[in-house]
Amino acid sequence: MTCLDGLAPLPLSDAMHHACRGGKGLRGFLVMESARLHGVDAARALWPAAAIEAMHAYSLVHDDLPAMDDDDLRRGLPTVHIKWDEATAILAGDALQALAFELVSDARCGEAEARAALSLGLARAAGARGMVLGQALDIAAEAAGTPLDLDAITRLQAGKTGALIEWAATAGAVMAGADTGPLGRYARDLGLAFQIADDILDVEGDEAKTGKRLQKDAAAGKATFVSLLGLDAAKRRARDLVTSACDALSSYGAGAETLRETARFVISRES
Amino acid sequence: MTCLDGLAPLPLSDAMHHACRGGKGLRGFLVMESARLHGVDAARALWPAAAIEAMHAYSLVHDDLPAMDDDDLRRGLPTVHIKWDEATAILAGDALQALAFELVSDARCGEAEARAALSLGLARAAGARGMVLGQALDIAAEAAGTPLDLDAITRLQAGKTGALIEWAATAGAVMAGADTGPLGRYARDLGLAFQIADDILDVEGDEAKTGKRLQKDAAAGKATFVSLLGLDAAKRRARDLVTSACDALSSYGAGAETLRETARFVISRES
Repeated sequence: MTCLDGLAPLPLSDAMHHACRGGKGLRGFLVMESARLHGVDAARALWPAAAIEAMHAYSLVHDDLPAMDDDDLRRGLPTVHIKWDEATAILAGDALQALAFELVSDARCGEAEARAALSLGLARAAGARGMVLGQALDIAAEAAGTPLDLDAITRLQAGKTGALIEWAATAGAVMAGADTGPLGRYARDLGLAFQIADDILDVEGDEAKTGKRLQKDAAAGKATFVSLLGLDAAKRRARDLVTSACDALSSYGAGAETLRETARFVISRES
Repeated sequence: MTCLDGLAPLPLSDAMHHACRGGKGLRGFLVMESARLHGVDAARALWPAAAIEAMHAYSLVHDDLPAMDDDDLRRGLPTVHIKWDEATAILAGDALQALAFELVSDARCGEAEARAALSLGLARAAGARGMVLGQALDIAAEAAGTPLDLDAITRLQAGKTGALIEWAATAGAVMAGADTGPLGRYARDLGLAFQIADDILDVEGDEAKTGKRLQKDAAAGKATFVSLLGLDAAKRRARDLVTSACDALSSYGAGAETLRETARFVISRES
């Protein structure tokens, strides 16, 4: 906590910690596994792993704001603007984004070349052609009131969730100066499977397990992979994507088995 | 503009451009001058100069939000959430912060070592120990209702405006691998003088020239350098700080005259 004389301790750092609690840590885990596959020391990989979790946490805090998705529950906890207030949520999110770049720029993350490459990739994945674009498309689609088609939803999700997942899964290859192609293909399939699974959980899931409000998309009349494909076809599509994600890692052989397990987990998870 | 079938073009990129219009460009100018002093090519320095302007623009967009300072006018134009809406302002700010890191990480900015150092410094200056901290302290002080003392306001402003100004003024030294000490001292004095001048403009300025709402601090009962020192002593203090800022550049000789002029401009400006 930070304070000035005459002021109560600020909620800023508590809010930042709160926002990082309770997640699955999927993106950080992808960084660690991607690093391990390329012989990158875990002590170095922890920095980009923490960075991507901070970036993801910021995106959730801002997405949950009243002017955005207006959510009161996240990871089984009250959202930041509910526990504190909107100003604290805006600032905690802003600071978490800066923290993500501070973490990937830390000298303990590795050589300058790798850090600069991670930072550039993270900025592109997070920004107006990546995650923020996906979120803006999502809000515009909701405002327009005309549900998107499958192609449009796929492109929207490639930004909203896909971009950070791809950065995470390729981080180890970037740090090692290796080809990011196979992990990039794995991540794009995985990201889409993850989002289809999210849409399925929104329909079939248990709020006590997901820790967030469900059935909001149907209530809002939003198009999802489930509303467009139907539940059974959505599940088949997710399974096909996981198979394709696993196949993309064939050049890594048995070393990539944990990443393949991760892909299977993504569509079987309950939270 | 970006669009998906069935959606109107998104306001995101227009809002980002709007947020960057009409400023003085002081921070970007400091980067260019700092680079010139150290023999760094202007074509390289343009990248961090654009980055700091994007970062500053994001901070203004978020500060102007209803949950923060709730301003409707900035740089003579309607603020982003007035011209569009709150969601667009939150997202445009988020994307501008990411853009700042994308710009300093661009290979055209220079060697990886310099880019990583700029990125790390920018993250620290922008984050929870820098600009965001200053803004959080400002909001907490307003909520507490008990005006801050001079020491507290000085520390608050060191975060809120000082951190980015220091990053900008030292960027050229960082890119050249030179000592950042003299420019750091210059920037700390300049940043404080800049804020005192802002407080004076809030009392004495002309809205048509500043392009933002004035006399908000007094109306809100906020402590400022003017309310704490009185107008005359605040002006003296600003002049003393400018003298000190200029003295800090003595080792640069006549080459730093433009930066000295800049310091004098900062306290004589009308906007």
